[in-house]
Amino acid sequence: MSKYAIAIHGGAGTILKSKMTPQKEEQYKSALMEALTIGETILKNGGNSIDAVEMAVRSLEDCHLFNAGKGSVFNSKGGHEMDASIMEGKLRNAGAVATVTGIKNPISLARKVMEKSEHVFLVGEGVEEFAKLHGLEKVDSNYFYDEFRYQQWQKIKDSDNFQLDHSDDKKEQKFGTVGAVALDQHGNVAAATSTGGMTNKKFGRIGDSSVIGAGTYADNRTCAISCTGSGEFFIRGVVAYDVSCLMEYKNMSLSDAAHEVIHHRLMEIQGDGGLIGIDAKGNVTLPFNTEGMYRGFAKSNGEKVVEIYGYSD
Amino acid sequence: MSKYAIAIHGGAGTILKSKMTPQKEEQYKSALMEALTIGETILKNGGNSIDAVEMAVRSLEDCHLFNAGKGSVFNSKGGHEMDASIMEGKLRNAGAVATVTGIKNPISLARKVMEKSEHVFLVGEGVEEFAKLHGLEKVDSNYFYDEFRYQQWQKIKDSDNFQLDHSDDKKEQKFGTVGAVALDQHGNVAAATSTGGMTNKKFGRIGDSSVIGAGTYADNRTCAISCTGSGEFFIRGVVAYDVSCLMEYKNMSLSDAAHEVIHHRLMEIQGDGGLIGIDAKGNVTLPFNTEGMYRGFAKSNGEKVVEIYGYSD
Repeated sequence: MSKYAIAIHGGAGTILKSKMTPQKEEQYKSALMEALTIGETILKNGGNSIDAVEMAVRSLEDCHLFNAGKGSVFNSKGGHEMDASIMEGKLRNAGAVATVTGIKNPISLARKVMEKSEHVFLVGEGVEEFAKLHGLEKVDSNYFYDEFRYQQWQKIKDSDNFQLDHSDDKKEQKFGTVGAVALDQHGNVAAATSTGGMTNKKFGRIGDSSVIGAGTYADNRTCAISCTGSGEFFIRGVVAYDVSCLMEYKNMSLSDAAHEVIHHRLMEIQGDGGLIGIDAKGNVTLPFNTEGMYRGFAKSNGEKVVEIYGYSD
Repeated sequence: MSKYAIAIHGGAGTILKSKMTPQKEEQYKSALMEALTIGETILKNGGNSIDAVEMAVRSLEDCHLFNAGKGSVFNSKGGHEMDASIMEGKLRNAGAVATVTGIKNPISLARKVMEKSEHVFLVGEGVEEFAKLHGLEKVDSNYFYDEFRYQQWQKIKDSDNFQLDHSDDKKEQKFGTVGAVALDQHGNVAAATSTGGMTNKKFGRIGDSSVIGAGTYADNRTCAISCTGSGEFFIRGVVAYDVSCLMEYKNMSLSDAAHEVIHHRLMEIQGDGGLIGIDAKGNVTLPFNTEGMYRGFAKSNGEKVVEIYGYSD
């Protein structure tokens, strides 16, 4: 059997052990493990990396704990606007959607854009028309309702503030995004990223999650990357593609390239967050420059780990 | 006096001399010259590159000949949706807007996003709210009306086709975008790009013009780039940042890096179009892999050229 591997994330940020109950920690870990197993099973059975990342991200989108799909935060109008993107590393095809409302799985919509349209990037009302045409599963606003998210929004809704997921103050930020990267037995890599944005966000703000090159990138010759962090800085740093360029143009290893980008280049412009990366040899890296990152990986050699805090690459 | 330089483009594509009248050619050249002179004057007087690129692009947006601002093509609903982005090379700040309607100068809106918001990328209705708050000049739909553009749309509006600017058939495409890059006497580079998209475009499609890294990028350490071409391929190729990476990571010159990206890397994924680039030494490059590109540059040594067809770098 050829090598395969998958890595996932559920967002990075100031995740303090002191604020976490053992029960809640268990919930996060078990949700990560479930998504990981879904992707791993596809890869083990000889399936494609693009299916593995889509299905792993769908699982995270369907879980209320993460800021994506069902768990999306409230925007300034009390609604839920989601962004997602996906890319495959063989032909470097990509699909991306932003400010999507009422769709259960934005990552599957991004994949439809990649496969069923001549376009890469669709936004706003137009993308809903496209979703309807392609029979994407719709949900009403009750589906996204969550007492915790609602209270987050209530606290700041009459202000000009917006906030990252889980943060009650600026020192305690979490970048709510989910993502997956995978290598399949055919040697193809793929990456997928999905987010519910920022609580009380206004003006149709888009972060890096739907921007190919910034939040998501895949190329069989180098790597597949999915990011989570302060989206504006990840866009300005073109973070996902930067890792690929360091590998291709400077012959760096995946882990050295990812380390350089997250711990040096991103810090130069004061960006924080992390990323998950995989290369065509099945190496995996999960660096972050924050307190923690919900993350995990599984490899064909049997290694399978989920983590929240601790050491970053 | 320190060196300064500016380059502009008004789109690339199959611009055939046989289809052009001397009169029309003169109109294009004089519009390019006007935009160039506006930017050049700012730079000559010691102004900033960010002002030079914004004002040069505004001049092109205000001209009905180019597919941006006033000259924007009709979308599938008979409206005009515009995208734009801007970036400065000193701190690498950026602003981008997409699917903007009713605003006279999308490039100035992108600059407001860069300077007056904590965000980089705003889209759809939200960005109009932001524009109102910041007093951007509004125009009604009559402002965008143009008989030639309207007839372009009428021909295909009841079909599923969308088309690039000026193309009556697939062999005769023009990528309607405008852009500018500049180096000022303070050693700072900047880039700006603006477009009216594709005739009969649907589903809130965004091309590369509003995507930082793809259509626009600026970094004093390397270069400032503005692209024009088949937007989907420029997004997948992360074209603007790729030129910067080849310079930074492989020590290539601006012109070698831009040539490599436009004539090799972009062709690998079947993308066509061109770009304009400038570096901190005042070198300028204007490569394209199409028949022509509306383009021009002016340097502090007195060189000043506008061209439509002919040899590409």
